[in-house]
Amino acid sequence: MGLFTKDIKTMDDLFIHQLQDIYYAEQQLVKALPKMAEKASDPQLKQGFLTHLDETKGHVQRLEQVFQMHGAKAKAVDCPAIDGIIQEANETAGEVADKTVLDAALINAAQAAEHYEIVRYGSLVAWAKRLGRNDCAAILQKTLDEEKATDGKLTQLAESRINLRAAS
Amino acid sequence: MGLFTKDIKTMDDLFIHQLQDIYYAEQQLVKALPKMAEKASDPQLKQGFLTHLDETKGHVQRLEQVFQMHGAKAKAVDCPAIDGIIQEANETAGEVADKTVLDAALINAAQAAEHYEIVRYGSLVAWAKRLGRNDCAAILQKTLDEEKATDGKLTQLAESRINLRAAS
Repeated sequence: MGLFTKDIKTMDDLFIHQLQDIYYAEQQLVKALPKMAEKASDPQLKQGFLTHLDETKGHVQRLEQVFQMHGAKAKAVDCPAIDGIIQEANETAGEVADKTVLDAALINAAQAAEHYEIVRYGSLVAWAKRLGRNDCAAILQKTLDEEKATDGKLTQLAESRINLRAAS
Repeated sequence: MGLFTKDIKTMDDLFIHQLQDIYYAEQQLVKALPKMAEKASDPQLKQGFLTHLDETKGHVQRLEQVFQMHGAKAKAVDCPAIDGIIQEANETAGEVADKTVLDAALINAAQAAEHYEIVRYGSLVAWAKRLGRNDCAAILQKTLDEEKATDGKLTQLAESRINLRAAS
């Protein structure tokens, strides 16, 4: 994609552009999640980040499968949104002195990444269906379901324990 | 907040930091939404952006109210996440040649911003309650509800018309 050219002419082009964008985002999250696990104090939160790291590696592979099925080369394009979300997570985490408060901040940071992905996969599934690619949509839906489940687990963990400890 | 100091020592500090972050984000969206409305072709989408612009101005005022109730000065801190989301929206929109495809891309971009806010307001409501500030939580909940409603309207608009036209 060129900065000074209008390369997205069809819905199919937009679909592929969005695949490239989320492909980059998933790769960045594969790098970020081990660092978040390292910073977490709560054992369940730490394990949650590591479990989601494994899932995220699977999401990268699923995207490669969708690229291939759709006859496009697996390629990443810069995604300033996920870069900003990760940068903000690092900056905030770096300012937190207390371990229990840091856990609350880490959950909030992880949920920002999850919701970014939920939006992007949601659009990808809808666009794939409109393009008559129910096969691609079914694969992308699996990842969307996992992102939503992770977000739900994070909310539950925050509400059941982490926020309580952080506020006490 | 200092870059080299750990200024967030308590949940209360984290709450105020997050208020400052979303205060910046809402201000950036007040600037971004008129541009998105200008780029949109579908009349309902264009009007939706303008309606949400009015709501967003109200969200800024609500945040100022919460700052005041909580005895903190209304102040914005840089929010790299919303900057990245808006930058990505502009970059992608700049690459789209077709008007109907641009509408689909604009909805996707707007939903990324909505979900970012849903996560942040969700945490703010939960944290306010843990801090015994149900009064602040109730105000923040109003904004959270509006962000969720806007996200739902965008999904409905995409699925009912915009994606179909973009893919045809």
